[in-house]
Amino acid sequence: MKFDLPSVLVSIKDGVIDLGWGHPSSRLHPTEAIRIASERLLASDDSTPLQYGATQGFGPFLESLSGFLSSQPAYGMPVDPRHLFLTAGASQGLDLACTLYAPAGSTVVVEEPTYFVIEKIFRERNLNVIGVPTDSEGMVVSKLESLLLDGLKPSLLYTIPTYQNPTGICLSNDRRHQLISLANEFDFHILADEVYQLIYFDQLPPKSLLAFDEGNRVISFGSFSKILAPGLRTGWIHSAPEIVKKFSDAALTFSGGGFNHYSSALIREVIDLGLLDSHVSILREEYSIRSNAMHQALKLYFGNEIEYTHPSGGYYFWLTFPKGFDANLLLPLAERIGVSYRPGNAFSESGSFPRQIRLAYTLFEVEELEEGISRLHEAYSKDNNGASLK
Amino acid sequence: MKFDLPSVLVSIKDGVIDLGWGHPSSRLHPTEAIRIASERLLASDDSTPLQYGATQGFGPFLESLSGFLSSQPAYGMPVDPRHLFLTAGASQGLDLACTLYAPAGSTVVVEEPTYFVIEKIFRERNLNVIGVPTDSEGMVVSKLESLLLDGLKPSLLYTIPTYQNPTGICLSNDRRHQLISLANEFDFHILADEVYQLIYFDQLPPKSLLAFDEGNRVISFGSFSKILAPGLRTGWIHSAPEIVKKFSDAALTFSGGGFNHYSSALIREVIDLGLLDSHVSILREEYSIRSNAMHQALKLYFGNEIEYTHPSGGYYFWLTFPKGFDANLLLPLAERIGVSYRPGNAFSESGSFPRQIRLAYTLFEVEELEEGISRLHEAYSKDNNGASLK
Repeated sequence: MKFDLPSVLVSIKDGVIDLGWGHPSSRLHPTEAIRIASERLLASDDSTPLQYGATQGFGPFLESLSGFLSSQPAYGMPVDPRHLFLTAGASQGLDLACTLYAPAGSTVVVEEPTYFVIEKIFRERNLNVIGVPTDSEGMVVSKLESLLLDGLKPSLLYTIPTYQNPTGICLSNDRRHQLISLANEFDFHILADEVYQLIYFDQLPPKSLLAFDEGNRVISFGSFSKILAPGLRTGWIHSAPEIVKKFSDAALTFSGGGFNHYSSALIREVIDLGLLDSHVSILREEYSIRSNAMHQALKLYFGNEIEYTHPSGGYYFWLTFPKGFDANLLLPLAERIGVSYRPGNAFSESGSFPRQIRLAYTLFEVEELEEGISRLHEAYSKDNNGASLK
Repeated sequence: MKFDLPSVLVSIKDGVIDLGWGHPSSRLHPTEAIRIASERLLASDDSTPLQYGATQGFGPFLESLSGFLSSQPAYGMPVDPRHLFLTAGASQGLDLACTLYAPAGSTVVVEEPTYFVIEKIFRERNLNVIGVPTDSEGMVVSKLESLLLDGLKPSLLYTIPTYQNPTGICLSNDRRHQLISLANEFDFHILADEVYQLIYFDQLPPKSLLAFDEGNRVISFGSFSKILAPGLRTGWIHSAPEIVKKFSDAALTFSGGGFNHYSSALIREVIDLGLLDSHVSILREEYSIRSNAMHQALKLYFGNEIEYTHPSGGYYFWLTFPKGFDANLLLPLAERIGVSYRPGNAFSESGSFPRQIRLAYTLFEVEELEEGISRLHEAYSKDNNGASLK
């Protein structure tokens, strides 16, 4: 008997160009690289990848990853393999960070808006979540400082410093310094979700937040989900040795051995063959083309009706519609017309973003992106002139 | 520069036969099966295994796993794929169960002795841990009942019902029924760590604890670590639909998609090729031979000096030495003589097992097991006659 249980996470209604998913398109999956790497990994009779892995991660993988990151101009700093820790993806690492650094009932600071699942993950761990506003330079650190001076005592601060999700903004260098200062002064750790760091288009982004760290405050989370293949469920933490040791010594880590040992051995082959470097180049080029196409389509169809910043890297456009617009209200109409997106208020518990929407340009091809924006404008026009608005 | 970071979890001193590790030996790793399955998985250009996976798990994997489990006489019940959930190994599933079912500060009941890392995992989550004694039929459920009647209100109970770690004992059928009754009456869930369920030698074990469940109380944890390859970091949960839904709907699950999606797609091929079934048969046969060899060696060298039960499946012998013996004190001498083990008190915070030790027969070959037991007896004899004991 077949039950037709789903295979993948995305579920898209027939005929809908769903710009809500920040996933790579299937055409961009590196099937050939994985095939070559698998053959090389399994060519020898070395069964090491099948055994329980070292708690910090498979040593040869950590070595290869350090070489790769050190060679990436967008990363901006040399990487010592002893400062790396293997995770089963950024989310798994963040979850373990909660266990190790955020007792239930403590407070985590996030950007507003922020990655739409992270607030739920923190709530699931019985943590309090406090939002700090963002502007065109990222988190408004002066506002954070006021909250800290007023007595806020966070256990952790979660930030996406580069090509932020959903706004696409980079935290400026000045604010990176200020944020580290505050972490030192007020004694909290910073979870830096840097999964988009390497996906820049023309200009290099600011360096990894870790390059600004002066007091072992930053725990940087990287992931192969955004630069290789999400299904591999593999990522890393880059941090100070004392922090890496804390993750390596966790009981959960010891219980199963290094997280995603086999996948990390496979990815090590991908790196050593030069295929990760070339794949990141392909993604940078392809996403640059797509983001330009989305930009042109937005200009063409919306003109001055909406505001947005053309992203310089990452996955997302963050659109601001005129006052009175309600992204949640437009959604059913948009889906009937054949386009979808994530409404702004999905990215904040504050409810402050009714007139924002996030669009991703990663899952669809250029022609589909153009058609999607055309449909979005059609929906907006109908809605704008219709009864549902005001 | 090379840093020689470790590759695997086990670290064994040169020349020591370390019977402390419950890991499969490298000779038993199914490298050929993984190679064939990889080739088949990557032969098509279907990139589904590289995309974010469905939250419950990769559908075709869940279907194949349900067929496999249903066909295993040791599992003892038919399995509906809709009742399965993909994990990144039993530990990951147990950790997520803590997030979903055990608020910080609540109490978890464990067997005494129990899996030596689980108490640390629970403590790391700020849970209280209460131990219930075991005897030759497993957890003494009447003792648990007394504690519950006295006001104990656990959020969860953790048990290893079959071939318990470290004792090798199976919870009897009567006690399985009684345990479920108590869970219903006193409203707690049971985490059944059933990773050894399929490794029986001559006689079938009791059915999975889930087969006794009448009130959606049991969350059964399975793992490919003990029946295929630990490095793949893949396992499953088998439970009632309402519980599977809770795991599938968790924010952490949604954030990365199904846990270890790629590995599960690889394992699906292993299952469909019949290679998991044949590998489990090989392991059962090999571990049966090794456990007999260990039994014979223990008889030969120790005679009536110690007590133990010859295990009918699983990975472990649990030895009881005479009164006054201290397993921790013997360890340095034993390691100098070239053998190691896990002292009994590693398996309980109660400190009640100074004269017990756990031996695993999975990592070493028959000749090494015999030599290891010979060395253990040599160490014991020296210690027994020496100054360190009383």
